[in-house]
Amino acid sequence: MKKHNFSAGPCILPQEVLKKASEAVINFNNLDLSLIEISHRSADFVAVMDNATNLVLELLDLKEKGYTALFLQGGASLEFLMVPYNLMKESGKAAYLDTGVWSAKALKEAKGLGEVIIVASSKDQNYNYIPKGYDISSDVDYFHCTSNNTIYGTQIKEFPKTDGLLVCDMSSDIFSRKLDFSQFDLIYAGAQKNMGPAGATLVVVKDEILGKTDRQIPSMLDYQVHISKDSMFNTPPVFAVYVSMLTLEWLKAKGGLEAIEKLNNAKAELLYNEIDNNPLFKGAAAKEDRSNMNVTFLLTDQSKKEVFDKMCKEAGINGLNGHRSVGGYRASIYNAMPIESIQVLVNLMKKL
Amino acid sequence: MKKHNFSAGPCILPQEVLKKASEAVINFNNLDLSLIEISHRSADFVAVMDNATNLVLELLDLKEKGYTALFLQGGASLEFLMVPYNLMKESGKAAYLDTGVWSAKALKEAKGLGEVIIVASSKDQNYNYIPKGYDISSDVDYFHCTSNNTIYGTQIKEFPKTDGLLVCDMSSDIFSRKLDFSQFDLIYAGAQKNMGPAGATLVVVKDEILGKTDRQIPSMLDYQVHISKDSMFNTPPVFAVYVSMLTLEWLKAKGGLEAIEKLNNAKAELLYNEIDNNPLFKGAAAKEDRSNMNVTFLLTDQSKKEVFDKMCKEAGINGLNGHRSVGGYRASIYNAMPIESIQVLVNLMKKL
Repeated sequence: MKKHNFSAGPCILPQEVLKKASEAVINFNNLDLSLIEISHRSADFVAVMDNATNLVLELLDLKEKGYTALFLQGGASLEFLMVPYNLMKESGKAAYLDTGVWSAKALKEAKGLGEVIIVASSKDQNYNYIPKGYDISSDVDYFHCTSNNTIYGTQIKEFPKTDGLLVCDMSSDIFSRKLDFSQFDLIYAGAQKNMGPAGATLVVVKDEILGKTDRQIPSMLDYQVHISKDSMFNTPPVFAVYVSMLTLEWLKAKGGLEAIEKLNNAKAELLYNEIDNNPLFKGAAAKEDRSNMNVTFLLTDQSKKEVFDKMCKEAGINGLNGHRSVGGYRASIYNAMPIESIQVLVNLMKKL
Repeated sequence: MKKHNFSAGPCILPQEVLKKASEAVINFNNLDLSLIEISHRSADFVAVMDNATNLVLELLDLKEKGYTALFLQGGASLEFLMVPYNLMKESGKAAYLDTGVWSAKALKEAKGLGEVIIVASSKDQNYNYIPKGYDISSDVDYFHCTSNNTIYGTQIKEFPKTDGLLVCDMSSDIFSRKLDFSQFDLIYAGAQKNMGPAGATLVVVKDEILGKTDRQIPSMLDYQVHISKDSMFNTPPVFAVYVSMLTLEWLKAKGGLEAIEKLNNAKAELLYNEIDNNPLFKGAAAKEDRSNMNVTFLLTDQSKKEVFDKMCKEAGINGLNGHRSVGGYRASIYNAMPIESIQVLVNLMKKL
């Protein structure tokens, strides 16, 4: 049966990427060896790493602009710690925007290293909107925000202007839309939404911002150490980097961020229109802050739940359950999700 | 052409494991979904993690003995930092045995957190032996050693008795031989030798030793945080954990550590015998400390190098180059290496 995979992450990847990844596990580059049993120092794998990091900068339009792309390990969760370690001065402070669980986890780790100012929070409304109109004090070492909030289905549309450093966790919407990425000083993202399998973490950092704290940084947490070794200070997560490279190649062939943004807008519009026009459903997030990656919605009549869940299951829909803290449903419609799968879901909503 | 993969790591894995891993990238557990696109919270993946951690404890004969097995990220390099963070008291000290580059990297990270005593070092002889007869002071927080040294081809055969905690980096020989693993308080290992693809790190820790420093530990570096979430504090490296599980199943089916140790001894003996009996070759490491995983050897007549390298290449031999700091050759003959491949190499050595 054809499955429609609305999982929030790890999540859908392009079918042709999965096919190539599967083949490489048996025979990589016609070497008669598996991708996962060759040395990461071999020419064949070094080329994969180079290609992947180049594609990142090219797709974000950050080539020749003083940025380095790194593939690391530990997910966004380890970045929550690495960001303050690398950017927060001894007895320094940082400003955080609190838009949900992931922001809260990020600022918790920063608190272990210095002072944290929460410039604004939407916790009062269970994070169903993005706070706006806040001030960022000019004496902080950096400002941190989370661009897309998977659990609540909210997304930052306009990023604040700040004189200081702008740091963004883009784990769940990187490569989904065109932005002026040069407004950011550091971007990080776990691979497992729009990029590849869990196990790789992308960091894109402006070189000139590093090495300016007096802090002693452990080797594995030091961006400059990883930069000096081209993401190979230690053995990289070979498979996850390779699959990320394949996905980035797929994205480039599709026309890059401009093309994928159009598709993503059309996909989101199709689903949000049904939510707004069907009296059996309502959206969970503030309209102006709605995410184009994670569409959260609720039934207006709970008695329909059993029937709707059964219809979804029979249609091969996977991963539609909302997060326990919001309830209802969450359709994660990342880059690789075809509009046809969203149409299947919308048709069921109409039929209910 | 049939390849003989002597790569030091990432390295050879069992062919049947590669086949199953390749299939799972397309269709996992007959879900009609890829392993790498399903939620790590799904029942299907939770079962993988449970199975993998149970197999670890079973194979090491550590079940019901107060140990927890964790699958983390960051490789042994991140463990170099996590070990002192979790075990070294504020203004505490730790003892390290220096048997090569990896030991030296481990103790460097510990120095960032406290005092480090190097109990002995074989640096004077380019690490070609394992120091013995050293004392471990009773007032250290733990003693740390590296069981197998890939670069130099040395391996610890007897571990020291200590009243304190015994910590071991077993990255390159875990699951290769039977030991009394209950003598260790903490064992860690990158997956990419005897276990699976790069990107997962195994930690086996005695629960009672944790939580005893007054140190504030960042979440991602805190073993107790990972234990409390069954290795899913954040998204685990799904593919690497799954392939590790497959390899552990393969090992169990082969008869576990006792059976694999016999095979590994036979494989090593075959190659060391040739090195010792062929006047064109000599071993690089002290005989009594020779590794059964990484066999390092040198030509006695450098003029034969070109011919021998050509013969190896034509026979489909991969990854035999020695590390630059030792030179010569290094045959890495991990668990999955068939004795037939070693026979191919030995035959070439005889022919030279």
